[in-house]
Amino acid sequence: MKSWVPGADDSLFGLDNLPYGVFSRDGEEPRVGVRIGDFVMDASAVAAYGGDPGDGPHLAAAWDQPSLNAFLALGRPAWDTAREWLVEVLGNEVHAERTAPHLVPVAEATLHLPFVVADYVDFYCSLQHATNVGRMFRPDGDALTPNWQHLPIGYHGRAGTVVVSGTDVRRPSGQGRPGSDGGPPAFGPSRRLDIEAELGFVVGTPSTQGTSVPTGAYADHVFGVTPLNDWSARDIQAWEYVPLGPFLGKSFATSISPWVTPLAALDAARVPLPGQDPEPLPYLAVDGPAGYDIAYEIVLNGEVVSRPPYAAMYWSPAQMLAHLTVNGASLRTGDLYASGTISGDEREQRGSFLELSWGGTEPFGRDGRTFLEDGDEVVLRATAPGVLGGRIALGEVAGKILPAL
Amino acid sequence: MKSWVPGADDSLFGLDNLPYGVFSRDGEEPRVGVRIGDFVMDASAVAAYGGDPGDGPHLAAAWDQPSLNAFLALGRPAWDTAREWLVEVLGNEVHAERTAPHLVPVAEATLHLPFVVADYVDFYCSLQHATNVGRMFRPDGDALTPNWQHLPIGYHGRAGTVVVSGTDVRRPSGQGRPGSDGGPPAFGPSRRLDIEAELGFVVGTPSTQGTSVPTGAYADHVFGVTPLNDWSARDIQAWEYVPLGPFLGKSFATSISPWVTPLAALDAARVPLPGQDPEPLPYLAVDGPAGYDIAYEIVLNGEVVSRPPYAAMYWSPAQMLAHLTVNGASLRTGDLYASGTISGDEREQRGSFLELSWGGTEPFGRDGRTFLEDGDEVVLRATAPGVLGGRIALGEVAGKILPAL
Repeated sequence: MKSWVPGADDSLFGLDNLPYGVFSRDGEEPRVGVRIGDFVMDASAVAAYGGDPGDGPHLAAAWDQPSLNAFLALGRPAWDTAREWLVEVLGNEVHAERTAPHLVPVAEATLHLPFVVADYVDFYCSLQHATNVGRMFRPDGDALTPNWQHLPIGYHGRAGTVVVSGTDVRRPSGQGRPGSDGGPPAFGPSRRLDIEAELGFVVGTPSTQGTSVPTGAYADHVFGVTPLNDWSARDIQAWEYVPLGPFLGKSFATSISPWVTPLAALDAARVPLPGQDPEPLPYLAVDGPAGYDIAYEIVLNGEVVSRPPYAAMYWSPAQMLAHLTVNGASLRTGDLYASGTISGDEREQRGSFLELSWGGTEPFGRDGRTFLEDGDEVVLRATAPGVLGGRIALGEVAGKILPAL
Repeated sequence: MKSWVPGADDSLFGLDNLPYGVFSRDGEEPRVGVRIGDFVMDASAVAAYGGDPGDGPHLAAAWDQPSLNAFLALGRPAWDTAREWLVEVLGNEVHAERTAPHLVPVAEATLHLPFVVADYVDFYCSLQHATNVGRMFRPDGDALTPNWQHLPIGYHGRAGTVVVSGTDVRRPSGQGRPGSDGGPPAFGPSRRLDIEAELGFVVGTPSTQGTSVPTGAYADHVFGVTPLNDWSARDIQAWEYVPLGPFLGKSFATSISPWVTPLAALDAARVPLPGQDPEPLPYLAVDGPAGYDIAYEIVLNGEVVSRPPYAAMYWSPAQMLAHLTVNGASLRTGDLYASGTISGDEREQRGSFLELSWGGTEPFGRDGRTFLEDGDEVVLRATAPGVLGGRIALGEVAGKILPAL
């Protein structure tokens, strides 16, 4: 399966990838685009021709929007139809002449937040990460809380501060623990600003309040995935999080990729979970390979400082979704839920600076970094096996730290 | 200041109240309405006359919408202009003839969720409630966590499951603690389903990510208030909430009133806080009376079982807002934040069944209730002093429990 688009087959954005985003050029209205090689295909413009395989005119309206939400709301059959149509249009040379004028070089495109985030939930699905954090935050207790192996722990984050890759992140200020003299809490810019390398899951098909979504319906509701950086201020978080969980330590910014990769592009990346013991309750049971083999790189100022393996995650996305809705909580188009920090067994596979520097005690990398400095730029990269035998790239997530105001 | 609307002056919805909601009748499109006596005034229809004091035509477009969000986005000057105009239109008999046809009896109106909720944050601002819960949930530790008197503790809830008063609430299912034999967690319908009587604050004016909102700008950003019932499954919550906070124990449903009461209607209800010791950090300092004297009633199947006093709350809404944004988290039009359970010093002033029954050990009320039974109906009522010397009512919040599926 070859594409006629120059360079596409030799890139990480070939016909087996085709992620969706929202782009604009030169002050035009933002609209849906599909990444192919080093180009963005103006999806609604191409679909509006009509007469294409796969109900192109129907999709054109959904793609002529400043967010993916209208397309996400169409549901699984439309997503599959769209993908077949894209493969035909970008793979069959007969469509080249009239499609090529609607390919915009990605370097000339402005990429926007790809969807309007409805609710944002962050999970905590890496056994290695939870163990590391537990050892650091609760040194006198068990590393894992008693519930950890029974349910995918999660909490709601702030949907309104989810930003697209490339958005600068202002260092947050806030309260930290008082000193040991019993004085007032510390206040000022965070001194332990961190990242969390995660994978986000984008919900398309809504559900009804009062009902739950079984694990087997995962692919009916979830459209695709996007790498995510859950920026975290550890000093703010450590002081505030008991008893109601993280709040201001997380809510200042969460970055996602401009590209949402459809689940179909990850078919060859599906792998079994590492193993769950004890066996989860029946509503959390999954059949077949419920995990994904996605290789992450954390790049700090140009240096790869960690390589977290998504395949090591304990809880699967279908389990997160089933848990999220088991109490009858409804889904909306645009809901985003994330995996929590991805950390592997090895030190150089840890997904946060907190873990890489072991709470700030073990500087890492070329510059001996513990937590983020002003001006630091972090890029998350992720690739996975593609269905054509090579690899595909998930969209990068980049962000630079601005000094506190 | 009298209204020409029959019965309005003798009701709790006189000219000094004028809450906003969204209504429809007989399959018409939902649009903004203003409550006056036992009527809903079709706001856009009246404003569309033009020539009224106060820029009526400008407001007409914002009110001809299925949610309050467009009006909320106009900001404080427009909110004040609108209120002056409403007082003129509903107070000056010269407007009666052409306005009366646009008064719909509230009994004939369907009331909708009044605004699209952007992000929902729930605080924990009652010292009495936090102390009661701490004693029950953490009997071996201090009732209050060390941070409680230094910051208004809060966490994000699920915006997508906020429903309007009158919506039935399905009993949630989920995991509870394992028995003492170390077996698997319990699973099934919640057996400790509860309410929390709260006050919600509705944000109109957004803020910019990376900046914070000082306490003094509270009334520039917050449009008004709505009573809120934070339905809670205590058995689910108790098992899940360590370490990342409440999640499924809360996310199945949160009910709000159909009416949003403008801050101006609460001018006569402003009271000093009970007192804060230690003095909060400077970013949490407030001038003048930062609390509200609002009297709640919790009505269970027709019986008043508690009378929580909002005036007893430790942290003020201006402090919640300043804290919520001190890290640079932005506000959006439609953001909702709530006070947390309102509990007074006395047993009959507690704002949750958990406290009223002291963890299920002390049945209360006519039926000896501990937690909610299927078929129970709970109504929250709230009144406050009005600026005309009488009292005003905040909208009721009602909900009935349906059995688990």
